[in-house]
Amino acid sequence: MLNQSKIPQATAKRLPLYYRFLNNLYLQGKSRVSSKELSEAIKVDSATIRRDFSYFGALGKKGYGYNVEYLLGFFRKTLDQDENTPVALVGVGNLGTAFLNYNFTKNNNTKIEVAFDVDEAKIGKKIGDVEICHIDEIEEKVANISVVILTVPVSEAQTITDRLVAAGITGILNFTPARITVPEKVRVHHIDLAVELQSLVYFMKHYPLEVNQDEE
Amino acid sequence: MLNQSKIPQATAKRLPLYYRFLNNLYLQGKSRVSSKELSEAIKVDSATIRRDFSYFGALGKKGYGYNVEYLLGFFRKTLDQDENTPVALVGVGNLGTAFLNYNFTKNNNTKIEVAFDVDEAKIGKKIGDVEICHIDEIEEKVANISVVILTVPVSEAQTITDRLVAAGITGILNFTPARITVPEKVRVHHIDLAVELQSLVYFMKHYPLEVNQDEE
Repeated sequence: MLNQSKIPQATAKRLPLYYRFLNNLYLQGKSRVSSKELSEAIKVDSATIRRDFSYFGALGKKGYGYNVEYLLGFFRKTLDQDENTPVALVGVGNLGTAFLNYNFTKNNNTKIEVAFDVDEAKIGKKIGDVEICHIDEIEEKVANISVVILTVPVSEAQTITDRLVAAGITGILNFTPARITVPEKVRVHHIDLAVELQSLVYFMKHYPLEVNQDEE
Repeated sequence: MLNQSKIPQATAKRLPLYYRFLNNLYLQGKSRVSSKELSEAIKVDSATIRRDFSYFGALGKKGYGYNVEYLLGFFRKTLDQDENTPVALVGVGNLGTAFLNYNFTKNNNTKIEVAFDVDEAKIGKKIGDVEICHIDEIEEKVANISVVILTVPVSEAQTITDRLVAAGITGILNFTPARITVPEKVRVHHIDLAVELQSLVYFMKHYPLEVNQDEE
């Protein structure tokens, strides 16, 4: 139904965002939405939205917009929303704790099922219903898990990554400032807080915001 | 020296990353670097790096690579690294505390100078050298600050944003799940933890990783 090779990665990255917003619209009983409304709500310009949607076929109609239920069904299938993905979190410091308290299950089917740390004071406790285990239990406890959120200190990032990869982890959301090295089959998405902040400052200085007037 | 309008935003977003890595190379005494080395270190494919660099003119040479010191000087000017940017943080929960403990000043010149919360138990305390003030002091304390990191509960995000904008803030790094509404002159970069996680899972399922063999 979907020719994956034709979708640019930048478009693919916006899919969860589209899904989440359309799901909210659907819950509110809305049956259609224009690219302009979508644009204002999710802060992506409407030309980009129309181009993104075009990769999935011509889903919109001039003067009508997009059918919410159809789109939602489409994105649900595309994002495999009906399939649950268990996730492990490694490093229960402030950032890790924030993740555990965050309600991932509200609009999607990713769920942190287990967390790991080395601090004996934390082992055996629960945060947001997730048990904290000792890091030496990783190999045993991630047998059915392929995705990890990495929130360990930067000095531990590579060592822990090597252990995770050896235990069969194939996807890592890296929140440490470390650029970790992994085998080619393992996907790493890196969110570097300092880089995000620098990037915002750079855009503020160099990319004056423009009024977006196109409509569909 | 730089025609901003010709640089795609995706390229601009990678600039802080390039800068950080080149600065590390420079500190290690390296004088040149190939796009392949850069690619392996920062996990961006080398074709993308070469295309990015081409927007700044032909900086690389076949068989030699790029001159580190020249590149570093170039990026330093481009990113205004010589100029210090003060930042405020609003919401000292787990995520906000993680930011305050994070050493932003190591490789760049953005610095959190003040933090705000409503919890009386936190007011007047310091985390990582940053004083926590009551949120009612925002208007008075951000007179010289234009950038804010937003780490408040989702229910407070829009109300606080309105106050920040009224106080003259023009850039917000939004770490709440809320899609906040701001006047057109205000730039918001949104990092949604749930969306990042969903995106990783989606990419793992649909974008098998390929070996990158090009070289410069």
